[in-house]
Amino acid sequence: MNAEIIAIGSELLTPFRQDTNSLYLTEKLNQLGVEVIFKTIVGDSLENLTEAAGLAVSRAEVVIFMGGLGPTEDDLTREAVAEALGLKLRRDPEIIANLEQRFAARGWKMAPNNVKQADVITGATVLPNANGSAPGQWMSGKYEGGERIIVLLPGPPHELKALFEEQCLSRLRAKLPQQFIATRQLKITGLGESQCDARVAPIYKLYTDVQTTILAGAGEIQLHLKTRATSLEAAQERVDQLAEKIEEELGDYVFSDNGDSMEQIVGYYLQMRNATLAVAESCTGGLLAERITSISGSSRYFVGSAVVYSNQWKTAFADVPAEMIEKHGAVSREVAAALAEGIRKRSGATLGLGITGVAGPTGGTEAKPVGLVFHALAADTGTEVAERRFAGDRKRIRWFASQQAMDMVRRKLM
Amino acid sequence: MNAEIIAIGSELLTPFRQDTNSLYLTEKLNQLGVEVIFKTIVGDSLENLTEAAGLAVSRAEVVIFMGGLGPTEDDLTREAVAEALGLKLRRDPEIIANLEQRFAARGWKMAPNNVKQADVITGATVLPNANGSAPGQWMSGKYEGGERIIVLLPGPPHELKALFEEQCLSRLRAKLPQQFIATRQLKITGLGESQCDARVAPIYKLYTDVQTTILAGAGEIQLHLKTRATSLEAAQERVDQLAEKIEEELGDYVFSDNGDSMEQIVGYYLQMRNATLAVAESCTGGLLAERITSISGSSRYFVGSAVVYSNQWKTAFADVPAEMIEKHGAVSREVAAALAEGIRKRSGATLGLGITGVAGPTGGTEAKPVGLVFHALAADTGTEVAERRFAGDRKRIRWFASQQAMDMVRRKLM
Repeated sequence: MNAEIIAIGSELLTPFRQDTNSLYLTEKLNQLGVEVIFKTIVGDSLENLTEAAGLAVSRAEVVIFMGGLGPTEDDLTREAVAEALGLKLRRDPEIIANLEQRFAARGWKMAPNNVKQADVITGATVLPNANGSAPGQWMSGKYEGGERIIVLLPGPPHELKALFEEQCLSRLRAKLPQQFIATRQLKITGLGESQCDARVAPIYKLYTDVQTTILAGAGEIQLHLKTRATSLEAAQERVDQLAEKIEEELGDYVFSDNGDSMEQIVGYYLQMRNATLAVAESCTGGLLAERITSISGSSRYFVGSAVVYSNQWKTAFADVPAEMIEKHGAVSREVAAALAEGIRKRSGATLGLGITGVAGPTGGTEAKPVGLVFHALAADTGTEVAERRFAGDRKRIRWFASQQAMDMVRRKLM
Repeated sequence: MNAEIIAIGSELLTPFRQDTNSLYLTEKLNQLGVEVIFKTIVGDSLENLTEAAGLAVSRAEVVIFMGGLGPTEDDLTREAVAEALGLKLRRDPEIIANLEQRFAARGWKMAPNNVKQADVITGATVLPNANGSAPGQWMSGKYEGGERIIVLLPGPPHELKALFEEQCLSRLRAKLPQQFIATRQLKITGLGESQCDARVAPIYKLYTDVQTTILAGAGEIQLHLKTRATSLEAAQERVDQLAEKIEEELGDYVFSDNGDSMEQIVGYYLQMRNATLAVAESCTGGLLAERITSISGSSRYFVGSAVVYSNQWKTAFADVPAEMIEKHGAVSREVAAALAEGIRKRSGATLGLGITGVAGPTGGTEAKPVGLVFHALAADTGTEVAERRFAGDRKRIRWFASQQAMDMVRRKLM
């Protein structure tokens, strides 16, 4: 089965805003075995919206409209879909009563324009919206082009998601041929995209029934595996089998086989080993600490970070000897090691991480170019230092550096 | 004049990837006075792409295709546009020669599938691509529906941008009525969206020739002003006038009147006052330092941050008395002030910032709920503390807290 998603709103045709709901819906539809064949973005124009609606219903089996269900003059989805289908709108007294109650509960009087939200297309089922005033609508049956499922959803993401999950998923499932989809997500770090693909392509090409997608980001590669079968067990077995073979090939370059982030993985390992981590970071400027503490509960294993941006701080907060900085420069193997050892000792943490480098775009020299970063990990068994040259802009270099630092912790505790 | 943008590629119909080129193109088109009325996203299907192309040409005056110009079987844009327009493709020997040269320069032999990229639609002008192998194409003239401009651009963002800027902008400008567009961007913090709108709507509604867009994000509101006139001076004067009246109304809630970020503004003020900043942050976990150091050259005014996630670190790195934490709790007015004063004193910076709060989702209590954050700014004139309650998830609360902290620095130095 195929689908078209229509995002409605003039703000989605500006340079400042972009539809993101469709990514969520696509994921949910794909999981049901429904493929998205078109996405259309259209402004708050009755003519354009009616045209888009008519076209979508003629070419896709599932058509989902997002947005344009509010109370303002610009909210035209109900009118446009009714017109495109040659159907009428009826004003639903029950919705009006609910709206009035909703306003009364807040001590407000309902403004008259709100009654628009009670207009229901002939034959549509009303989908109550617990998180907002505009209900959604569900239609299924014979329309222009054949059997169709047509859904109107509110635009705000939290309203759309709750409504879709609670009221559309089971309805959709009942309309679809019974099939099961299994997915796996592997995350890889330390390999380039083409290196990675060269090693795994010969494996995944043997699994023609599993759809394999490679996505490369800063400092990591994701492999998405997906397959369909007549039982969940059969589908799961296929993706698990392929995932296992890929993991065998790539070994410890795979840091996650269930979609977890590097921050989460590092957190798991630290807790598992009953270890704590302290950081002294220069060029990453707090990013490493920010990523680690983005995980709720990280205080169980993360004690803190000294963002030692100035040389004075490197000495005052991580006990790096001033003469060492003088002699080797702040960006050096020696200073990275001293940062890691200094912060570990001072804080009494199990592990100490040190990072120093040139994030750019300025500050590079021939000997120490932009992108050069030294990472050090100190433990009771000694200190290891990794030197890397990252390409890209300031943001990307800092991200790569934080990823590499966390990967050193992962490999140490693995 | 109006436009439709068509993004081509099956990966843009997955949950993992999204067209972002269209935001760039929309900005450029808007600057020329061209409005985008539809965006269509279509996969690598000849049938669907041909349908989308025909429809776009029938309803929009400018049609821009992005992607599908490469050498693989999936690259079908040339074929589809030609078919939709009822035109033929010719294979251009000059492009083939260029392609062969391109490969030879790398010491490679050109694979035969590459010749596809030399197919040119009848009547089209070839747009050479300095950054990739697939050239773009430009057509303008009478097509189905009337006078049309039809452009085929490669999908990779750096190829698309370079090609559009160097070869399409001036061609488009020559086809458009002479007009000038001026824009201004104001950024506001400390006011909610509806509060802000209630105060400025009576002003901007008097400027019917200026398009005003309000965008609310975490911790800031942006006001985008745009107008057109027959001279640049006239256009600029109108937006400047409106911007000035809005600034008069909102006063120092406006932190930027040229689009600069809070990080940049704080950097300017610190440099202007010859001041330095040191931070001791707990709940923001390094985010404040990360934002400040995202600006290249921030080492001129930022000395460092102690990410004092554990209580032990609050004492060891920012000299917060352990008894104070014991008595008032780590999240308290007193500890925030002590963090700011401690880090200022220890580092000798002009200003010291302290942040402590409950970022959630766990760790909240009735007395100290999730979202409660204390911010303190210490200077030679004394210490001020701000208590705030932010709503939202962990990420949002941390972002708000970092924004509020920087705003205290801005207001202090203003």
